[in-house]
Amino acid sequence: MPPESPLAKFCFPVRVRFADTDLQGHVFFGNYFTYMDEAFMAYIDELGFAWETLGEMGLAVYYVDSGCQFKGPSFFGDHLNVHTQISQLGNSSLTAEMAVVREHDQAVVAVGYIKGVLVDNRTEKSTPIPEALHEAIATYQDG
Amino acid sequence: MPPESPLAKFCFPVRVRFADTDLQGHVFFGNYFTYMDEAFMAYIDELGFAWETLGEMGLAVYYVDSGCQFKGPSFFGDHLNVHTQISQLGNSSLTAEMAVVREHDQAVVAVGYIKGVLVDNRTEKSTPIPEALHEAIATYQDG
Amino acid sequence: MPPESPLAKFCFPVRVRFADTDLQGHVFFGNYFTYMDEAFMAYIDELGFAWETLGEMGLAVYYVDSGCQFKGPSFFGDHLNVHTQISQLGNSSLTAEMAVVREHDQAVVAVGYIKGVLVDNRTEKSTPIPEALHEAIATYQDG
Amino acid sequence: MPPESPLAKFCFPVRVRFADTDLQGHVFFGNYFTYMDEAFMAYIDELGFAWETLGEMGLAVYYVDSGCQFKGPSFFGDHLNVHTQISQLGNSSLTAEMAVVREHDQAVVAVGYIKGVLVDNRTEKSTPIPEALHEAIATYQDG
Repeated sequence: MPPESPLAKFCFPVRVRFADTDLQGHVFFGNYFTYMDEAFMAYIDELGFAWETLGEMGLAVYYVDSGCQFKGPSFFGDHLNVHTQISQLGNSSLTAEMAVVREHDQAVVAVGYIKGVLVDNRTEKSTPIPEALHEAIATYQDG
Repeated sequence: MPPESPLAKFCFPVRVRFADTDLQGHVFFGNYFTYMDEAFMAYIDELGFAWETLGEMGLAVYYVDSGCQFKGPSFFGDHLNVHTQISQLGNSSLTAEMAVVREHDQAVVAVGYIKGVLVDNRTEKSTPIPEALHEAIATYQDG
Repeated sequence: MPPESPLAKFCFPVRVRFADTDLQGHVFFGNYFTYMDEAFMAYIDELGFAWETLGEMGLAVYYVDSGCQFKGPSFFGDHLNVHTQISQLGNSSLTAEMAVVREHDQAVVAVGYIKGVLVDNRTEKSTPIPEALHEAIATYQDG
Repeated sequence: MPPESPLAKFCFPVRVRFADTDLQGHVFFGNYFTYMDEAFMAYIDELGFAWETLGEMGLAVYYVDSGCQFKGPSFFGDHLNVHTQISQLGNSSLTAEMAVVREHDQAVVAVGYIKGVLVDNRTEKSTPIPEALHEAIATYQDG
């Protein structure tokens, strides 16, 4: 199951926890969203906009949409790499696409996306994405 | 936020656990997939195909695709009703659509879907959906 | 496995989620703590001190100690009743004891406790338990 | 909050997930049990008895008792080291003790234990701990 397209440069490692599995013996489908969330936040962190930094700027991210296709099972102890890139940038929204790839056999076990909206922490209203974040994404992804 | 279309007849009640929330103060987005899963399995159960019954028939369901739009936050202790209907039935696949509605204000906090494939437990290959399940769905949803 | 002592009057129903299980086929041990937490908060709510009410009083509960003995497995779909009583009340601490009993066979699947400390939300320092809560507990448990 | 006794040699790194937090803004207490479980299994793995290896030997571990004291909060993104040692070895039972230490300030945020029993996978009855595991523990911990 080799990936169909080149994998994103940014990649976040996740190790499957025992607690992440279910009675079918592999990872509960809902936990791939947790893995994608980890990678999204880590990527934003890498770009200089860690959750804490956003908070100090009076900002937060609200997720509005997410989806995932499950290509095959993954198991307790698997090392997964969640390749992540920003695929769409709106005025206040940003969408990240992920491919979850198992390290030992390079199988793509899931592909998905998360769409978030930047909000002002006080008003909880959407707010424009800072120019600096636009630039950081462009620099990272086109670099 | 009244629902745009009539809600599905089948509905599964979920009470938000403290553990389901995150540092933003409301339900972690990934947990809506858990709620939708609960409702899907409960609906199949209602139709006479409980997880245990499927197991005795040598069958299981593998999820292949799922998505959710988050319309607004829900909170610890909220009583949510997950309205669920089968919207698509293929040879071996079935897709359920859900609307997650808070009881006290009827706000639609999330809408989503889960697509599953029926598999043979031994071979882990897809297998046709039993005619009896087709009929049970038709009877329930058109009834 | 009948309970050794009479079960507490207060009891909170939990239905085991698919997501609560692990690859061993039954409930992941850590999730019994989630169940006990649900019951503890519901009991406090029943006594007139819901989480929201505590918040409005400027109070919160921090857990400082918890333990659980696992007597036997429980499974997806099991209806569990978490019998709960306050067994110890200090100046600012309170300990709840729980017995987790499966409905259909009355098996005691787990027994445990949670010890919490009442804190002032602003200072995060421990604060005396209100007299009204002392009285509510005495009235409920001795009634 | 420096640890009171020397920390165990074996230590397993955990990074706090966003999903691990709750509405209080820090890690949900039940998730420390997940962290301790991760460390226990990783330690057994280090000793040559990975979960998969145990399975091939027809063995599994059932947890029978666990407890934890919460010394202070930990937060999203914290790097925690779960120091782990076997503190008690019975005929078929083994107890691991853990100290959960935050990397950046060496704060001990939790201390706890998990007691497990080795079982035969087919009979689900307890079975003696292999001599080789006794020896591996002695060698590792006294080394």
